[in-house]
Amino acid sequence: MKLYNYFRSSASYRVRIALQLKGLPYDYLPVHIAKGDHRKDDYAAVSANMLVPMLETDEGERLSQSMAIIEYLDEKHPTPALLPADAVGRARVRALAQSIACEIHPLNNLRVLKYLVRELKIDEEAKNTWYQHWVREGLEAFERQLSQLPPSTYCYGDTPTLADCCLVPQIFNGRRFKVNFDGLPRTMAAFEACMALEAFQKAQPSACPDNEP
Amino acid sequence: MKLYNYFRSSASYRVRIALQLKGLPYDYLPVHIAKGDHRKDDYAAVSANMLVPMLETDEGERLSQSMAIIEYLDEKHPTPALLPADAVGRARVRALAQSIACEIHPLNNLRVLKYLVRELKIDEEAKNTWYQHWVREGLEAFERQLSQLPPSTYCYGDTPTLADCCLVPQIFNGRRFKVNFDGLPRTMAAFEACMALEAFQKAQPSACPDNEP
Repeated sequence: MKLYNYFRSSASYRVRIALQLKGLPYDYLPVHIAKGDHRKDDYAAVSANMLVPMLETDEGERLSQSMAIIEYLDEKHPTPALLPADAVGRARVRALAQSIACEIHPLNNLRVLKYLVRELKIDEEAKNTWYQHWVREGLEAFERQLSQLPPSTYCYGDTPTLADCCLVPQIFNGRRFKVNFDGLPRTMAAFEACMALEAFQKAQPSACPDNEP
Repeated sequence: MKLYNYFRSSASYRVRIALQLKGLPYDYLPVHIAKGDHRKDDYAAVSANMLVPMLETDEGERLSQSMAIIEYLDEKHPTPALLPADAVGRARVRALAQSIACEIHPLNNLRVLKYLVRELKIDEEAKNTWYQHWVREGLEAFERQLSQLPPSTYCYGDTPTLADCCLVPQIFNGRRFKVNFDGLPRTMAAFEACMALEAFQKAQPSACPDNEP
């Protein structure tokens, strides 16, 4: 498999974690988002939405959207499972993942921050406040959801799931923007539990071939 | 089942479509988002993330996040299926759905528009430009994805899927903000095909008990 990727892309990191958890080898094809390489002709020729991550399967299928890719990997390579066996459990894990992927991350990705600065002319401080606002508000909602679930090592249960694949990159991004993580005990405990695992470490931005220190 | 809902909420409309397509009866419990009812104590007591839609199952499970709810409904009530039978097909449909639910809709929901106006002090025209920009850019990416798929009546294949459940409410929202839909032939053909179906009509905002003309 080939993974079109950018070390700092939160959505890319989600897929790298899933590939590591499942022990699946892949070729890492860097696409430099900050330099706009995803909008150039050669990437547009292979990627209809011009976003990373994109997974190209051994059969040549090009798949986009991180959560869709992870569900695909989970269906084709079921062990270890990244979704629970029961329908309610799957609904809970998907909802946790979507709380990050639909409520937090979209507001803070690079193209949105660029629009705020270039089109709406907001300054650096207002940009950082915007960023922190949505991460903090979103993680408080995430924490409330976790607090209604039985005690667990990770976000849901005692093995990592799709929810953890989404949470960890969001915390990494939040740290870059100095988000306050106080008062989020279940969320941060799940994050720490994940980071104790080799799969999450091997997938992190600083371990990527295109990492810029 | 009970569905906590708001007639104008795009994410709520997605779930209403799925329930109609599957012919599942439900109690409609209105939550007036524009008046802030989702942030009041009585709704916070039942909804951890204080968002709509929320589905309460007959077993008392409270499920959030529209795509997670629809997948749950599809697992519990498999006919008619809202996801293809093969893994690549499912990945494509989920990616199309997520192209809307993760790339377009989050930038334009009410709390974001309120932040732009109240905190960033942008005027009505700049707000409308913001709205139109993300819908248009997102739908162009959506159209490029559709254009690489075999001809189909709906977004993917000849029966409605999760992708259509997400597309139709996005077009409704875009119309309210006078988005230009020119040059999106596959996208708009899928929308029109959906709107010819009773399920999509019965689920639309104007058919909701809390509709405000």
